[in-house]
Amino acid sequence: MGGGAGIPTAAAVPGATAPEPDIGLAERLFERLRRQTADGRGVTRAAFGEGEQCAHDLVAAEGEAAGLRKHVDAGGNLYLTLPGHGATGRTILLGSHLDSVPMGGNYDGAAGVFAGLAIAAAWSRAGCSLADDLAVLALRAEESNWFPFSYIGSRMALGLLPPEALELARSDTGSSLAEHMRDLGLRPQEVAAGVPQIRPETIRAYVELHIEQGPVLIEADRPVALVDGIRGSFRYRQMRVLGEYAHSGAVPRAYRHDAVVAAADLVTRLHREWLRLEAEGRDLTLTFGQFYTDPAQHAFSKIAGEVSLSLDIRSHEAKTLETARALAHRHVDEVAAEHGVRIDTGPPTGSTPALMDRTLIQTFLTAKDALGLERFVMPSGAGHDAATFAGAGVPSLMLFVRNRNGSHNPDEAMEMDDFAAATRLLAEGVARIA
Amino acid sequence: MGGGAGIPTAAAVPGATAPEPDIGLAERLFERLRRQTADGRGVTRAAFGEGEQCAHDLVAAEGEAAGLRKHVDAGGNLYLTLPGHGATGRTILLGSHLDSVPMGGNYDGAAGVFAGLAIAAAWSRAGCSLADDLAVLALRAEESNWFPFSYIGSRMALGLLPPEALELARSDTGSSLAEHMRDLGLRPQEVAAGVPQIRPETIRAYVELHIEQGPVLIEADRPVALVDGIRGSFRYRQMRVLGEYAHSGAVPRAYRHDAVVAAADLVTRLHREWLRLEAEGRDLTLTFGQFYTDPAQHAFSKIAGEVSLSLDIRSHEAKTLETARALAHRHVDEVAAEHGVRIDTGPPTGSTPALMDRTLIQTFLTAKDALGLERFVMPSGAGHDAATFAGAGVPSLMLFVRNRNGSHNPDEAMEMDDFAAATRLLAEGVARIA
Repeated sequence: MGGGAGIPTAAAVPGATAPEPDIGLAERLFERLRRQTADGRGVTRAAFGEGEQCAHDLVAAEGEAAGLRKHVDAGGNLYLTLPGHGATGRTILLGSHLDSVPMGGNYDGAAGVFAGLAIAAAWSRAGCSLADDLAVLALRAEESNWFPFSYIGSRMALGLLPPEALELARSDTGSSLAEHMRDLGLRPQEVAAGVPQIRPETIRAYVELHIEQGPVLIEADRPVALVDGIRGSFRYRQMRVLGEYAHSGAVPRAYRHDAVVAAADLVTRLHREWLRLEAEGRDLTLTFGQFYTDPAQHAFSKIAGEVSLSLDIRSHEAKTLETARALAHRHVDEVAAEHGVRIDTGPPTGSTPALMDRTLIQTFLTAKDALGLERFVMPSGAGHDAATFAGAGVPSLMLFVRNRNGSHNPDEAMEMDDFAAATRLLAEGVARIA
Repeated sequence: MGGGAGIPTAAAVPGATAPEPDIGLAERLFERLRRQTADGRGVTRAAFGEGEQCAHDLVAAEGEAAGLRKHVDAGGNLYLTLPGHGATGRTILLGSHLDSVPMGGNYDGAAGVFAGLAIAAAWSRAGCSLADDLAVLALRAEESNWFPFSYIGSRMALGLLPPEALELARSDTGSSLAEHMRDLGLRPQEVAAGVPQIRPETIRAYVELHIEQGPVLIEADRPVALVDGIRGSFRYRQMRVLGEYAHSGAVPRAYRHDAVVAAADLVTRLHREWLRLEAEGRDLTLTFGQFYTDPAQHAFSKIAGEVSLSLDIRSHEAKTLETARALAHRHVDEVAAEHGVRIDTGPPTGSTPALMDRTLIQTFLTAKDALGLERFVMPSGAGHDAATFAGAGVPSLMLFVRNRNGSHNPDEAMEMDDFAAATRLLAEGVARIA
């Protein structure tokens, strides 16, 4: 029983490597899912809607056909389990989500679920098992454009969704989350009661494979990375710089309260601070994604009296996030005073950075070595369900697969070879979780 | 015949001062015009439309009642003339416009015409005259929001309107300038032929009283200023900074092409250049009145791939305008290179600075002294019909009246006492034009 990688199996496992995942199965699923959820330009899989349900059905059917045990929890999350032989009472979760943004790409989310299924199905068919249960977990509603709330599926799984979130309206239908759940025969009242669908202490590990949403692996020429932390955020989603509209030619500089000049100064100052913190080796991103004068009032011949802008600061280092927050405060105050404008930052929002589990990172680095993959570790700038599990004390890890053109658009482009390499690493790492 | 100020009169004129203008007449006209062109919030006097025509009718009736000679030229400009006694064949014009922006203020434009009428009517009734003809000139279509072209009325008067301008559509009706003129019984074909309605060499002087559109006189605590020049302009009305949309958390700084950061840097750099030129004593204004990310694509969690912005540079010094233009070019190129973005400036537009006549300035400074008003000279940042006359070689001058809250809005607030002081200065200055 069992190879060096800790995989007890009915069949023999050669050497230290895990049985080969069924990449072909994943490939067929990508193709069918793309076809079934195509929207003309990309794919659309509304959370608790048709596209997401179609993906859940596809995955459930394939999992059951491979002999995995199917379970759907009160929130609609799907578990496909390969029972362990060790009666440990613990489960290793290979999870991700199956919804997409509107006109999104085929791989964001689905890649993680299909990778898990490619492993669990192959092992099930080969008669292999781990001591712990191994469950593929298809989570609901990760993309917050459908309901304006983060990590709905994973919070439901852990009994952590605030009840009021069930009343949020879906952006396309206007119907509430609870209504959409009832339409699918799910149990919002149980979710509202905060009943954990799976208890954190029974989860041996949560591991999520996901496409990278930036260009780091493309630029570094690496197929797959381990993620050491998920960046937390500090945000002013709706700031306003309030100056005074006036004639562009008739008002001398000394009498101006120019909202554009003030807001531009704020952008430039904080960008300069980013350069400085980056030079100190701190992890940070800093983005003013929206910056606009009022179309009803602005004119080329008017000094701008108002600018709306958003600030999104992220770091996987809690201390850096705090430093950046304090710098934003300071420069907001200084800019307001220097330019004679008022700056209303609006309410701050944000999230806590989530650290990935150090032991899991070590295990997977060793797995990389075993597969001849170069070690490469990076933070995740985007949020993922892994942050929910890490926040609940579950040892968690993410793998990023190289991907071109970012995500949340139809042009995202993951090569199947990279997916295969990452899925093999996922299998090898999971097999090594002692 | 004639007092020390060069006013030959049938009645005696005491000392060196001109006969008192009829401020009460102007006050009644302001009140009636406000009532007749009210739009609920401010006043609206569409060029070659109802509001403007109403103002022309009011002024014509009052002028004729005071014995002035009425003439309407091919373009609809109204002349109310007090004939001179000297048979000089020359005319002193006291002009301004009677249109307003939509929801505008009562004084922008009308103040200059009413001041002229208060003088000419009072002198006519008192039996006074100058050697030259003195004509109140109510010009058409100065506000370029109705037809996108500057100084339409004064260009028509001098035979300088390009014929294609007659095909421009009015922003509210969509009908062409020529059509609107025909509706009023005017003669667009004569305007198209470039026939001067008044020959520049017959104009002794063009003097325009206007409310100040900035806060300079309020801040300086002066009721009236002489204007030494009308700023010319250099404009990029529609620039675009083109970067790359990407995930705000997932893309490190080195791989960004952030249009907001680049555009903000451009604003900050040019603002710094303004500070430097200002410290050298150069006349300049520099305004980015519009600055906006694309509402269809921007998001707080996306690096901005595009910013649209406008740049309006003004100076009454041709050399400073050229310096600023060159600086704008240089910084556009540097910012594009440093931030890895493309900057499409779009076509430049602009106008030439217009210098006011030095002899007229001296004459009016002396008139100020005579009236016990402190000398105060400033440039005009906004464009005015005086620029057309100055450009055609006519000795031209403007007087600015103190005014609160800028112009082009219902809140513009000129005190009648300031208007009276400025109108007396206008009378005194005109009387002193030898």
